[in-house]
Amino acid sequence: MKLYEAPSPNARRVHIFMAEKGLECDRVAVDIRAAENLSADYLAKNPGGRVPMLELDDGTCIGESVAICRYMESIQSEPVLFGATGVEAAKVEMWQRRAELGFLLEVAGAFRNITGFFKDRETCVAEWGQVCAERAPKMLTMFDEQLAQTSYLAGDNFSIADITLAVALDFARMVKVVEIPELPNIQRWYGEVSTRSSFSAT
Amino acid sequence: MKLYEAPSPNARRVHIFMAEKGLECDRVAVDIRAAENLSADYLAKNPGGRVPMLELDDGTCIGESVAICRYMESIQSEPVLFGATGVEAAKVEMWQRRAELGFLLEVAGAFRNITGFFKDRETCVAEWGQVCAERAPKMLTMFDEQLAQTSYLAGDNFSIADITLAVALDFARMVKVVEIPELPNIQRWYGEVSTRSSFSAT
Repeated sequence: MKLYEAPSPNARRVHIFMAEKGLECDRVAVDIRAAENLSADYLAKNPGGRVPMLELDDGTCIGESVAICRYMESIQSEPVLFGATGVEAAKVEMWQRRAELGFLLEVAGAFRNITGFFKDRETCVAEWGQVCAERAPKMLTMFDEQLAQTSYLAGDNFSIADITLAVALDFARMVKVVEIPELPNIQRWYGEVSTRSSFSAT
Repeated sequence: MKLYEAPSPNARRVHIFMAEKGLECDRVAVDIRAAENLSADYLAKNPGGRVPMLELDDGTCIGESVAICRYMESIQSEPVLFGATGVEAAKVEMWQRRAELGFLLEVAGAFRNITGFFKDRETCVAEWGQVCAERAPKMLTMFDEQLAQTSYLAGDNFSIADITLAVALDFARMVKVVEIPELPNIQRWYGEVSTRSSFSAT
């Protein structure tokens, strides 16, 4: 299988997920600044043109990083990163969505609309970027309160929700458009997850 | 188990999902216009204050409609709505995310920012609403091209991705802030899914 990718928080989520699973695959660099992801060849494989995208040996193409991770979970179940029971799977889904929709997408919305990084291909509204930048840190309070009670975001076990939140925090610190408050439980948790060997995967 | 809910596309997704599974549960109406979802009691159960939320008999609370559906899938596997194999599960995740992030959330963004429906509790940016309103219909072309090749959005089988897209289309038509083009394959597919008995569940 081949992973088509460009440097991004989403690619990093997949790298960490694969490293946790001990999985490897071929890599194909996609130059998104040169709009390679919008070429006819790429769009035929992955309509919408997003990266990363996983191409299986039989030609099946899977877009969306969480879908790629879910496929990886199906071919290598250990360690379980999407929850082992019905309740755990639901909690992982819940926290994964909160981390992604409530935080990562807000940070990305702030970044794209404030800096105009993709202004050659999308309409940017700086005022909306500010709304995203103000909303993102508020979600962190929710995560901090959860992490006061549990080892990891979705409970006792490390999961994809932790990967999403830690990657989103690193991205937020890198792009500097969102103010990240220092919160004690997030700090304890981040110290643990960010030093896992999987987090140095590239 | 108890479903806390308010009329919304997300509640409707859960209703249809449960009807497909033949599942029932107690219902608790939450008045979001009166901000009942932001009360201390509700926030203790579901930080963030979103609806719907499922409370299990042991007190476990599951927020996020897709997480609720995933729990339902775990207690009643048939009919399978999240994919039966690893590849199918990945494809369902991919199309479910495209339908939700790429269309439903864009329609919601257009609705909330253009009409100011929740302006008592969130900052609305009309210009951003227009960006969402312009982007949403473009995604429909991708869905139409997929539905030219497959019976349902994620392949041969009806899945949660179909529920999300059909509910989002109904919501878009109701709130009238997004122009919905007539596309032949979506029309064929919508005629089939929207007449399933589960779609009349309330």
